[in-house]
Amino acid sequence: MAEKDLSDLFVDTLKDIYYAEKQIYKALPKMAKSAASDELRAAFEKHHDETEVQIERLEKIFEIIGKPARGKKCDAIEGILDEGKEIMDEYADSPALDPGLLAAAQAVEHYEISRYGTLKTWADQLGHKDAVKLIDQTLAEEKKTDETLSEIAVTAVNAQAA
Amino acid sequence: MAEKDLSDLFVDTLKDIYYAEKQIYKALPKMAKSAASDELRAAFEKHHDETEVQIERLEKIFEIIGKPARGKKCDAIEGILDEGKEIMDEYADSPALDPGLLAAAQAVEHYEISRYGTLKTWADQLGHKDAVKLIDQTLAEEKKTDETLSEIAVTAVNAQAA
Repeated sequence: MAEKDLSDLFVDTLKDIYYAEKQIYKALPKMAKSAASDELRAAFEKHHDETEVQIERLEKIFEIIGKPARGKKCDAIEGILDEGKEIMDEYADSPALDPGLLAAAQAVEHYEISRYGTLKTWADQLGHKDAVKLIDQTLAEEKKTDETLSEIAVTAVNAQAA
Repeated sequence: MAEKDLSDLFVDTLKDIYYAEKQIYKALPKMAKSAASDELRAAFEKHHDETEVQIERLEKIFEIIGKPARGKKCDAIEGILDEGKEIMDEYADSPALDPGLLAAAQAVEHYEISRYGTLKTWADQLGHKDAVKLIDQTLAEEKKTDETLSEIAVTAVNAQAA
């Protein structure tokens, strides 16, 4: 068996985030339904739409590198989303539910930011210029979503304290 | 049973990151030992020392809020570190090992950045001024570590391509 190189690592990590995005796409409507504030619900719904486009971008990247779009179980996102589910159970009907949902969502965003940042560096090195552009678009959206959630988080803790 | 509020959520999340930091503290020497480049090994060793101090800061925060310092199994960090172990196995002796280790370490950093960012917002709201200061110190270190790893990541992929 040939030694695995950076292009293998790129494909493996692409599969990891493709699986993760699909799990996130499934989780977001549940998080939106749980959210107490309209603002947070709207943010989750908006990000659900964005996630759909981000999944399509990943499929385009698989096409660019000539590989079938396939996911690979990602333990990290499973763990992160499980913590979110735990919050939804333990803090249902609590004034701290929205702060908890926000924390869970920001952990998801940061996982994605780290993965896309890594993929961008590797795509650049591997000469996949079109992939770099697609990754950049998603990366900008994830960072923007994280900022929006940070802003809502401050409003949410103030509202729950009131 | 009284309804759980933001101070319960703060304690729960503190336990989560306390557990996570201890797992990271155990994982870093293995990652340092695996690293091919001296630069990456040194970065992991430095962060190992920082993590020790970060654990002590968390213990001070538990003291501030009058709770025993106790961890609570954190599925997210387990998943993130498992992915790192997988890389160490699958890419041992591969030129892509360092890029893979870097990706794993940056996923860890981003998890911590999201958790400490959240804890800071809540500590501020709950009036734990001294805790805010301690969290801020750790948050700055985690962000700096992530930046250092990003810089090494570019060097690492260039080196493996050469």
